[in-house]
Amino acid sequence: MRFMCGVCLLASVALNVFLVRNYVFVGDEWKKQKLSSSWAEEAAAEAEAVALISCSGHGRAYLDGLTVDGKPVCECNTCYGGPDCSLFSSDCAADANGGDPLFLEPFWMQNPATSAVLISGWHRMSYVFPGNYFVSQELENHIRRVHSIAKNAVTQGKYIVFGTGSTQLLTAAVFALSMNLSSPAKIVAQAPYYPTYRVQTEFFQTAWFGFQGDASVLKNASDDGAELIEFVTSPNNPDAQLRKGVLQGPHVKAIYDHAYYWPHYTAIPAPADEDLMIFTISKLTGHAGSRFGWALVKDKQVYENMIYYITTAEMGTSKDTQLRVLQLLKAIHGKEIFHFAYKTMRDRWEKLSKIVSRSNRFRIQEIPPQFCNFFEEVRGPSPAYAWLKCEREEDSNCRAVLQAAKILGREGSLFESDDRYVRLSLLRGQDRLQLAAASIK
Amino acid sequence: MRFMCGVCLLASVALNVFLVRNYVFVGDEWKKQKLSSSWAEEAAAEAEAVALISCSGHGRAYLDGLTVDGKPVCECNTCYGGPDCSLFSSDCAADANGGDPLFLEPFWMQNPATSAVLISGWHRMSYVFPGNYFVSQELENHIRRVHSIAKNAVTQGKYIVFGTGSTQLLTAAVFALSMNLSSPAKIVAQAPYYPTYRVQTEFFQTAWFGFQGDASVLKNASDDGAELIEFVTSPNNPDAQLRKGVLQGPHVKAIYDHAYYWPHYTAIPAPADEDLMIFTISKLTGHAGSRFGWALVKDKQVYENMIYYITTAEMGTSKDTQLRVLQLLKAIHGKEIFHFAYKTMRDRWEKLSKIVSRSNRFRIQEIPPQFCNFFEEVRGPSPAYAWLKCEREEDSNCRAVLQAAKILGREGSLFESDDRYVRLSLLRGQDRLQLAAASIK
Repeated sequence: MRFMCGVCLLASVALNVFLVRNYVFVGDEWKKQKLSSSWAEEAAAEAEAVALISCSGHGRAYLDGLTVDGKPVCECNTCYGGPDCSLFSSDCAADANGGDPLFLEPFWMQNPATSAVLISGWHRMSYVFPGNYFVSQELENHIRRVHSIAKNAVTQGKYIVFGTGSTQLLTAAVFALSMNLSSPAKIVAQAPYYPTYRVQTEFFQTAWFGFQGDASVLKNASDDGAELIEFVTSPNNPDAQLRKGVLQGPHVKAIYDHAYYWPHYTAIPAPADEDLMIFTISKLTGHAGSRFGWALVKDKQVYENMIYYITTAEMGTSKDTQLRVLQLLKAIHGKEIFHFAYKTMRDRWEKLSKIVSRSNRFRIQEIPPQFCNFFEEVRGPSPAYAWLKCEREEDSNCRAVLQAAKILGREGSLFESDDRYVRLSLLRGQDRLQLAAASIK
Repeated sequence: MRFMCGVCLLASVALNVFLVRNYVFVGDEWKKQKLSSSWAEEAAAEAEAVALISCSGHGRAYLDGLTVDGKPVCECNTCYGGPDCSLFSSDCAADANGGDPLFLEPFWMQNPATSAVLISGWHRMSYVFPGNYFVSQELENHIRRVHSIAKNAVTQGKYIVFGTGSTQLLTAAVFALSMNLSSPAKIVAQAPYYPTYRVQTEFFQTAWFGFQGDASVLKNASDDGAELIEFVTSPNNPDAQLRKGVLQGPHVKAIYDHAYYWPHYTAIPAPADEDLMIFTISKLTGHAGSRFGWALVKDKQVYENMIYYITTAEMGTSKDTQLRVLQLLKAIHGKEIFHFAYKTMRDRWEKLSKIVSRSNRFRIQEIPPQFCNFFEEVRGPSPAYAWLKCEREEDSNCRAVLQAAKILGREGSLFESDDRYVRLSLLRGQDRLQLAAASIK
């Protein structure tokens, strides 16, 4: 009896501890008391007011922008200034350096009602969704739905892992594939490759894996029994080529980075069906700032290892971000966004390639027309980046050649290629390149 | 001339490429066309409708919850079920295991208008804020303001780093302090300590650092010249004691985990002014699900190292989350939230300690009254966790003793302490413990 009494005593306190203060409005009580006052209207009005601030088409005001007299002010695009961004600064370079996918911003401005979401103060305060998951089941459902619209990936029979951008998932995947091996895994990627693979992998200085550089070098190397992990980017960043892994064999595993495997950027010959594929909202809807990506994973153990990494590193992915991404995906009803994105990118590419073809100083990559599973026809290229080569002998530093003309690109050596190459982004907003042209004409 | 022409040609294409399709509604044009239609109202109405769904006070419906017939349904608290969560399941354990800070949910329900935020479809699509920063300057300003209200930290002369929860910042800090040392840093923490320090540090298997366990062991060890990094948690998780570092000397650096250094949980003897301090929104406003934390950092190089880690690992912190956290902090005008949180936690603690003091089977930690810089008076304890000890010889597995009475706690050995101890969370929602009491009475 004494045993149970001691425990009873403690247990009964639980009841008392949590019943003292009736701070929680229970059920209908709270609704009646509060919701009649239309608590969400103020936030809606504030968002609409900020959108009304005029920045001359060369900037934008944001809810979380810096304020003057308590009101957000215009944030001007590169080379523009003044309170309404109408002042043009002529000494200004065209930044085609980064991968900011702002070309999709107009699509969302055309769909303001379906893409807006209101987050209440009490939304998802817990670490977890029901069932102790870090992942919104509803968002997972919509991810599968959007893949089925785009016809770019097989989601049946795959687990889904969410990450803080595909950037985090790249690391999660490498750890997941190399944990508990008897010797360090060798990480490779076929040059030219996205520099983050090298930067991340080398940063950790871990016993689990080490970066080995260009996959092509290991292609014919003797098999020393070490596990090999190949990053396969398809279409490739920087050169937009569709790729398969270079390495084959029982000791080889591949991480397919499919960030750009959408009808926006490439023909989709068939739905991708690899064991480990990574996607990002950044290149699907253009929301790079949201830091949200997902992986489709076939093997249960690899899936669980990735979850373990995400949990250990940061206990899951922001619920606010998951809600916002869900709203964006809900706004994708049909094929509109893909048509919009493809046309925008194709037009940019066609103009660029037409003019480059008239020059014998520069060359850009060739991308053959190909049958597309999404458009159900043969379609031309619309890559995210131009991989531009300086053809003249003396132009060994192509980036410097362009910089002299106030065009900023990313040098080839960053991609373990030659500095005769430069990556130019075609993803950004309108103002970027058009100003440079004005300044050097 | 030919040189410049080649470049001119390329530059002029930029102009053309980006002007073809006028998908962007420029400035006033777009406003006139779109904003008159009150695009944000639908999202506001949807959020209000979800809040109206009645879950009997034992659950909640969410915008991103699972749907039936297209409408979100109730997610019931542990032990409740049925469409409106009114069905009680008697065979149910009281979960006082995790650190979900749901005791703050009622505060936000009392402030629905000021804490709601609407995110437009085009909000912050870029990777960066103006100036190429990953950090909202406005949010940084409000973080400093809230610290000055709480009087719990000196922010002047400190850099601020944002992270995906303080969880990510713990890792960022360890890497930042140990990168580029000539030998691996030794990581320690005084037992009992928060298990994540060990789990994270051991996970990476890195050449930069290794986990060495209890700081007290190294206190009198001979100085072998290795750099020592001590995690100092104050107030401590699990036992709520205010702490200073155990180790001293030129080779010692400290990471102050101040997750619980708010008037909610402890007297604030003075504003903290350490070189590296980490805070989290989870324990300030209760939004664990948002995954947002920040570090106050004195040294510029350490700050830059941490930024490098955050950039390499995931290119900054979600802009959606930053906007939502900004709105929550804006809703903190004065001392209300601190009064609410302190009273709630104090009442829970007082009830628990009163009953435990009547038993000779259990004991909980003592926390002496102390002068508080925030309340400007001597105040009693209100810790986040009870660190409960089973006093009887035969109760060497205290967790099992409690579990037999359907109370779930976290065992002492997880904190590198004795299993005679159990951590019980006082942070959670009302339903959790009260049900267990009912089930064993």
